[in-house]
Amino acid sequence: MYFHAQTWINEIADGEPDPAAANALQEGLGGQFGEMRTMMQYLFQAMNFRGPAAKPYRDLIQGVGTEEISHVELIGTTISRLLDGSPEYTGKLTDPLDTPGAGGATPLNIALDSGNIHHYLVGAQGALPVDSVGNPWSGSYVYNSGNLPLDLLYNVMLESTGRLQKCRIYEMTDNAVARGTLAYLIVRDQAHENAYAKALESLGVNWNKLLPIPKTNAESFPEVKKLLDLGLQSKQYSFDLDGESEAGKIFRGPSPSNDGTELSATEQAPPGVPSTISPERLEEFSPGLDADLLELIQATAELELDEIQSYYGPTSSSS
Amino acid sequence: MYFHAQTWINEIADGEPDPAAANALQEGLGGQFGEMRTMMQYLFQAMNFRGPAAKPYRDLIQGVGTEEISHVELIGTTISRLLDGSPEYTGKLTDPLDTPGAGGATPLNIALDSGNIHHYLVGAQGALPVDSVGNPWSGSYVYNSGNLPLDLLYNVMLESTGRLQKCRIYEMTDNAVARGTLAYLIVRDQAHENAYAKALESLGVNWNKLLPIPKTNAESFPEVKKLLDLGLQSKQYSFDLDGESEAGKIFRGPSPSNDGTELSATEQAPPGVPSTISPERLEEFSPGLDADLLELIQATAELELDEIQSYYGPTSSSS
Amino acid sequence: MYFHAQTWINEIADGEPDPAAANALQEGLGGQFGEMRTMMQYLFQAMNFRGPAAKPYRDLIQGVGTEEISHVELIGTTISRLLDGSPEYTGKLTDPLDTPGAGGATPLNIALDSGNIHHYLVGAQGALPVDSVGNPWSGSYVYNSGNLPLDLLYNVMLESTGRLQKCRIYEMTDNAVARGTLAYLIVRDQAHENAYAKALESLGVNWNKLLPIPKTNAESFPEVKKLLDLGLQSKQYSFDLDGESEAGKIFRGPSPSNDGTELSATEQAPPGVPSTISPERLEEFSPGLDADLLELIQATAELELDEIQSYYGPTSSSS
Amino acid sequence: MYFHAQTWINEIADGEPDPAAANALQEGLGGQFGEMRTMMQYLFQAMNFRGPAAKPYRDLIQGVGTEEISHVELIGTTISRLLDGSPEYTGKLTDPLDTPGAGGATPLNIALDSGNIHHYLVGAQGALPVDSVGNPWSGSYVYNSGNLPLDLLYNVMLESTGRLQKCRIYEMTDNAVARGTLAYLIVRDQAHENAYAKALESLGVNWNKLLPIPKTNAESFPEVKKLLDLGLQSKQYSFDLDGESEAGKIFRGPSPSNDGTELSATEQAPPGVPSTISPERLEEFSPGLDADLLELIQATAELELDEIQSYYGPTSSSS
Amino acid sequence: MYFHAQTWINEIADGEPDPAAANALQEGLGGQFGEMRTMMQYLFQAMNFRGPAAKPYRDLIQGVGTEEISHVELIGTTISRLLDGSPEYTGKLTDPLDTPGAGGATPLNIALDSGNIHHYLVGAQGALPVDSVGNPWSGSYVYNSGNLPLDLLYNVMLESTGRLQKCRIYEMTDNAVARGTLAYLIVRDQAHENAYAKALESLGVNWNKLLPIPKTNAESFPEVKKLLDLGLQSKQYSFDLDGESEAGKIFRGPSPSNDGTELSATEQAPPGVPSTISPERLEEFSPGLDADLLELIQATAELELDEIQSYYGPTSSSS
Amino acid sequence: MYFHAQTWINEIADGEPDPAAANALQEGLGGQFGEMRTMMQYLFQAMNFRGPAAKPYRDLIQGVGTEEISHVELIGTTISRLLDGSPEYTGKLTDPLDTPGAGGATPLNIALDSGNIHHYLVGAQGALPVDSVGNPWSGSYVYNSGNLPLDLLYNVMLESTGRLQKCRIYEMTDNAVARGTLAYLIVRDQAHENAYAKALESLGVNWNKLLPIPKTNAESFPEVKKLLDLGLQSKQYSFDLDGESEAGKIFRGPSPSNDGTELSATEQAPPGVPSTISPERLEEFSPGLDADLLELIQATAELELDEIQSYYGPTSSSS
Repeated sequence: MYFHAQTWINEIADGEPDPAAANALQEGLGGQFGEMRTMMQYLFQAMNFRGPAAKPYRDLIQGVGTEEISHVELIGTTISRLLDGSPEYTGKLTDPLDTPGAGGATPLNIALDSGNIHHYLVGAQGALPVDSVGNPWSGSYVYNSGNLPLDLLYNVMLESTGRLQKCRIYEMTDNAVARGTLAYLIVRDQAHENAYAKALESLGVNWNKLLPIPKTNAESFPEVKKLLDLGLQSKQYSFDLDGESEAGKIFRGPSPSNDGTELSATEQAPPGVPSTISPERLEEFSPGLDADLLELIQATAELELDEIQSYYGPTSSSS
Repeated sequence: MYFHAQTWINEIADGEPDPAAANALQEGLGGQFGEMRTMMQYLFQAMNFRGPAAKPYRDLIQGVGTEEISHVELIGTTISRLLDGSPEYTGKLTDPLDTPGAGGATPLNIALDSGNIHHYLVGAQGALPVDSVGNPWSGSYVYNSGNLPLDLLYNVMLESTGRLQKCRIYEMTDNAVARGTLAYLIVRDQAHENAYAKALESLGVNWNKLLPIPKTNAESFPEVKKLLDLGLQSKQYSFDLDGESEAGKIFRGPSPSNDGTELSATEQAPPGVPSTISPERLEEFSPGLDADLLELIQATAELELDEIQSYYGPTSSSS
Repeated sequence: MYFHAQTWINEIADGEPDPAAANALQEGLGGQFGEMRTMMQYLFQAMNFRGPAAKPYRDLIQGVGTEEISHVELIGTTISRLLDGSPEYTGKLTDPLDTPGAGGATPLNIALDSGNIHHYLVGAQGALPVDSVGNPWSGSYVYNSGNLPLDLLYNVMLESTGRLQKCRIYEMTDNAVARGTLAYLIVRDQAHENAYAKALESLGVNWNKLLPIPKTNAESFPEVKKLLDLGLQSKQYSFDLDGESEAGKIFRGPSPSNDGTELSATEQAPPGVPSTISPERLEEFSPGLDADLLELIQATAELELDEIQSYYGPTSSSS
Repeated sequence: MYFHAQTWINEIADGEPDPAAANALQEGLGGQFGEMRTMMQYLFQAMNFRGPAAKPYRDLIQGVGTEEISHVELIGTTISRLLDGSPEYTGKLTDPLDTPGAGGATPLNIALDSGNIHHYLVGAQGALPVDSVGNPWSGSYVYNSGNLPLDLLYNVMLESTGRLQKCRIYEMTDNAVARGTLAYLIVRDQAHENAYAKALESLGVNWNKLLPIPKTNAESFPEVKKLLDLGLQSKQYSFDLDGESEAGKIFRGPSPSNDGTELSATEQAPPGVPSTISPERLEEFSPGLDADLLELIQATAELELDEIQSYYGPTSSSS
Repeated sequence: MYFHAQTWINEIADGEPDPAAANALQEGLGGQFGEMRTMMQYLFQAMNFRGPAAKPYRDLIQGVGTEEISHVELIGTTISRLLDGSPEYTGKLTDPLDTPGAGGATPLNIALDSGNIHHYLVGAQGALPVDSVGNPWSGSYVYNSGNLPLDLLYNVMLESTGRLQKCRIYEMTDNAVARGTLAYLIVRDQAHENAYAKALESLGVNWNKLLPIPKTNAESFPEVKKLLDLGLQSKQYSFDLDGESEAGKIFRGPSPSNDGTELSATEQAPPGVPSTISPERLEEFSPGLDADLLELIQATAELELDEIQSYYGPTSSSS
Repeated sequence: MYFHAQTWINEIADGEPDPAAANALQEGLGGQFGEMRTMMQYLFQAMNFRGPAAKPYRDLIQGVGTEEISHVELIGTTISRLLDGSPEYTGKLTDPLDTPGAGGATPLNIALDSGNIHHYLVGAQGALPVDSVGNPWSGSYVYNSGNLPLDLLYNVMLESTGRLQKCRIYEMTDNAVARGTLAYLIVRDQAHENAYAKALESLGVNWNKLLPIPKTNAESFPEVKKLLDLGLQSKQYSFDLDGESEAGKIFRGPSPSNDGTELSATEQAPPGVPSTISPERLEEFSPGLDADLLELIQATAELELDEIQSYYGPTSSSS
């Protein structure tokens, strides 16, 4: 069973909208080696897992899989922020054909030649479950052979490829919003690469100097270096509410990445950052409420919350 | 951010393996109107949500979306159980070509003419991210227009269609494992149909006698009736760890299903059922560990857990 | 602009339901060489057509394309009839879990091992836009190079392949409903093969003895022979309401099929057969109206039609 | 059975070629919520329809579906016109490597960075059955549950989403050719939204102030306003040749769009506009006829039409 | 540049037709881990290869890739043989509706409920580029990151998964035709697993006891054991006509499969088996030649071959 | 069985990198009418071929199919060369974030708005198995009806369409690398068009003046004219190592292209051009070897080759 907190797993940097960068990040969300895929692959591997004696391996996979749901949320929201009001205007429109762009006549004109036109036409300047060339995510991506060594081998390759692709995207854009999230995911992908590589070590494999793949030079990626210095590549969170996870039996000892760190699985989760809600976009008819409907919404929002508060205690209404 | 507990959201009944029923249930997992789709659709609608004033609607969507992750886990595991050792044998093989079937020569022969051959050939008698005719789940299923009334309208239709399809599957098989999970999801789909219908009521719509769709006769579906009698169709869980959800501002008052119940969003989550791990299947090479590798696994499993326990406290090793 | 009459282009035979035959016919509807494809291919070739001097070729293509819409309707409805109540029961259920099948507990049980499970699970015993292995129809099937000789060459091949496949389906089943529609389409496909072959003759090609492809022996297919004796393979209907079509400039003279007939394009359309509406299927929740909703429907159906009749004249309410 | 007239359902404006606008319009043709989808969805819903007592609903769906075929023709031809000679040259080439562009060496160079390269490479500056990111249309889009309330609910959502997307495209381009067709389809989508919304009203739903979705401000879209002033959003054409349609039993009374108009279904069809054929494009090898083949075409075109005229009466040869 | 010999890489056993086994083997041809995929993946990895210093790795990949083309031919022809005349009749028809099956009326009736209906309907009892549930092969399967360690890691996993799946198919059928080809490919997949594992050993990895994956018990698979006893799992053919391949620098030394053999890359190719051509199938209209066309074919076949023989020397006309 | 030589079938011209041209060429590699498709289509037609009496037709198809593998290699490598270092820099980086582009901070920035972003993000500036809008190659493209006249007719159309598309790409770019390979493939496509057209002539068809399709004016395409003057459009290579091919019984006599040449099938293969290996690209982490791994590679490369040389004779180590 899964639970949720209204926090993001990492902060989303402030910065300029940038639809081309947003589109590149789609590979990390809906691409063949993106977060939707890791999330789904580990969820399936966990629920189809065979072999009670190998429970620590199941717990390791499920813990990483749970983290990937939060990564989907993080990169999806980052894409949404990169698209929001992109990039000719950052204000709030009062009429869909007014103000932004040249004379305001075609406020969505940018959609015709930047990034993925569906970001504006199908979505409302929000993330889509597609890759960076617009191919929808496919269930055929999920690998789950049921053979533990093969599944682990695939997972090492998957995390490394995810990191490789994010390093390449980092070299495509210097947008701060994009790079902030990329750097975090580059480091966490390495943590997951370490997790599966360590699991194979426990089955006898000696990786010697092969890992990490790709060999990156942290000095060239300052946002990455900062997180490596904090040791984030060597931590495994359980995201487990009951303390049942045995992943720590595997994720321990020297890192297979040969960086001199010790692996540690003692933390349940990172602290998180409070999430926020995007402003409306009149030119996208989103959320598309006129005065009449807004009045109805307002009535709902002002509802006396006695019933709820009697259960949860006082809520802190956001926005 | 998302968390996990090693419990299922509902129990999985005991019963006979049945690959044809397992395949029918795949529609509820990876079909166009299955749990993977609702999960992903609501996750995207939540993270792309626009309009801070409409936070209760966002929270409603996100709460349902979080529940859907657990539904994916529930129906996926149910499929896995329906396939396990299906159906000629239920024992544990000691040699892949021995014992089960006629003389043991072709223990996986059943794969040639029952359900989806990929259940045995690609997976190891486990669930797949595909529908009941084998089409992989597609990101093109996800609907997220950014227009709140449209998204809500779609969601009402989506939940009703999901329930319609599960009612039809119920009429295809009397396998107890399948029907147990189907009944639970039929009732929870109705709860979600109620949630989105109620949200549209708050925007002025009067459904009159149209809901629920489809009109079902609970008396004919005894497993369903039992849950309706408990009022499970009128509860909305928040799965929210911080008490931030404002979904209860919407999910309250008389049910739009016209069944005389009052909607209630006061519970965080159902109690859940401890999860278990499937046995190995030698004929599938799953998990595929020989004596040498098993010894290594055993060493991992027996690891002194001091480090972990010092953090979590004593663990209760399952299975 | 297109118009419609409430008639089918050919009769649909009476006979037994047969879900396996229905599934085979799906190839002729939604397969790569089925009627949806010919319809869409010719519609695109007609609207993108270049070269005013070649108008007769455009008109030929558009006339065939219009006929294909009626073929989609014909084969789709045939599939629907083959599925209706298939095949354990032909009566009308009064309770979804009652009567048909063994004890009525699982009236849709047949879906698990006959034809395409989606016919029962996604549709309500109706046709689907997919082929006979369940692949959805794809826009990538449509061929429209804009080069007239190539488009004509493709169309000859397309019609011949469609006929080849229908001849093979004919050999798979002796169900009268299926064979009746197959025979009609086999003969009309030959008419269209003749049309495009003749168009290439007008560009200089001499087919000699190659056509028709495949060589069939009408004596072995009695339903086909009956229609060939009527000369249906040598008629081209215009379906043109204004008499603007110049297709007759091409579709004339000796048939390229070497059967001794003369091609003729003098008829606007075949007479057609009044269409009917399928009965409801309670076990499919289709149309899914309970007593309350039926009463509302009844009110609509009994509406005084003065307004309509004042325009159209008296209507003849069908069914 | 379907028929055709050599007229377009609405005029196609004159204006500049514009491949980027053409590509955006592809969403309205081959996108998930475009005209190919509405056409196919309603065609399937009509032929699989269950419940003779609900014939007015079937007739409503089939009438809208027939109109959609003409919409496919309209938007497809509009795209074709937007691509024709786009946009560096508008003249007629005499040699594929001559004249247009810089020195004529690469007359199709624009294809490399504007719109969809397939418009020039696969088609000959003509429309394609794909969406605006190049995904082929898929049969998996078609929704036909067989449950009448669900099918109607989906159709309301479908038409509203189609209109939403066309409003967004309108904000992307001010090309007159594109906007002319967009405006017409925006208004007709609203008519269809009204049709299905009204059908649900007849089943008891009260939409109150929710419709139309999206809320648009006609004043900002002058081409749309002109058509709204004519009341085109409140007319339902039958396209029925026999006067059998009972759609008028539903499409009557006050508009659910709250615009004060009365719905009316008394017209068979709009007057239409004579269609024309595109010029040849030598650089696309379309239609690709050299002097020898042109001579053969000419012979066909000059054919004595006695045989045809004796049937149809005198033809008025177009172009 | 590639060349061809009219020999198969291994013999195809004689035996009974079996459409269900043929369908299972499709996974090994057109499945995600089948021979079309390995062939294409290695062809792309070879042509996009970077790093002249790493030529032995490129040559290893290209040599395996070339072998995979012959594997496509081998398994494709095996499927074709398993379908030929399947399975009710093995003779030669003289009339498509005569003789086989009950009374001959429906000779292709078996297509409705065995294996993949497309084998009979789309193909003429021949192999298709699809997997065992009918999904077409997709270019999205090909993995080629350009990072050498990642590509090698993927290839180890790919070959192991291919072998895993073929072992599972072996357990599904005891048809001699199917098992003969499966056994050969199981052993050759292991050779390729060894090749890529050895390449990673040269980059420092020590696999210890992990390989081969899956752990199989040769004694249970007699056809496999026979080939293992010949050492076929430890040979690498170059298929190189110029002696330029440097793959032998890698494929040497002790096998990473821990079976005590030494790897050897000294042979250019296996001896091969003369290929044959399938008989015609009248009920499939294949090749579809009537008396007139056969006469023309005969004229071609009897052509004086002076011109050809003057170049090649005397030909040995097969079949 | 297939063999390989380390030569390309034609030279690859030197010239500037050009990612937009590279993307256009992808249509010729992975498009619906590209080289992967012809290769696979003929490979399937050859292995599923029926009718021993028609062996010359099988041999013709297989010979062309073998040539297509070399075409895949040729156009794939051409794409790889067009991408290599594209286009802002042509040197060798020493740090992924250094030197190229403005300040070196985003060396892959060009990927955001030129050609296919996957060329840089998923591949390492190498060819992909996709078309020019990024759709993955699909097995559904392969046509193999088993009916010989239909298969030949399709093949004539396929080769002509391939040539048509390449002529259009020629008009999109004047990049010398692209045009060199395009010109070669345009001429060889015509040779294959001739081959299948001639095969249909042997079955009685007289093409008169229809071929070639499209009618091209060689004078406008100088690179093409040079090859036509050499008669390359009228040669059929066998690529057959044993002299068993009987394709010469068909490919002889006057060309159906009406260019006055005689067809000739007397050559086994063109001479070929020695292949080379691309340099590494540090910014792509390709091949991704650091100092430690390079040292291991070097050890492999310097291996004493006694064992290999004793079999093949002395090797000529490339690069």
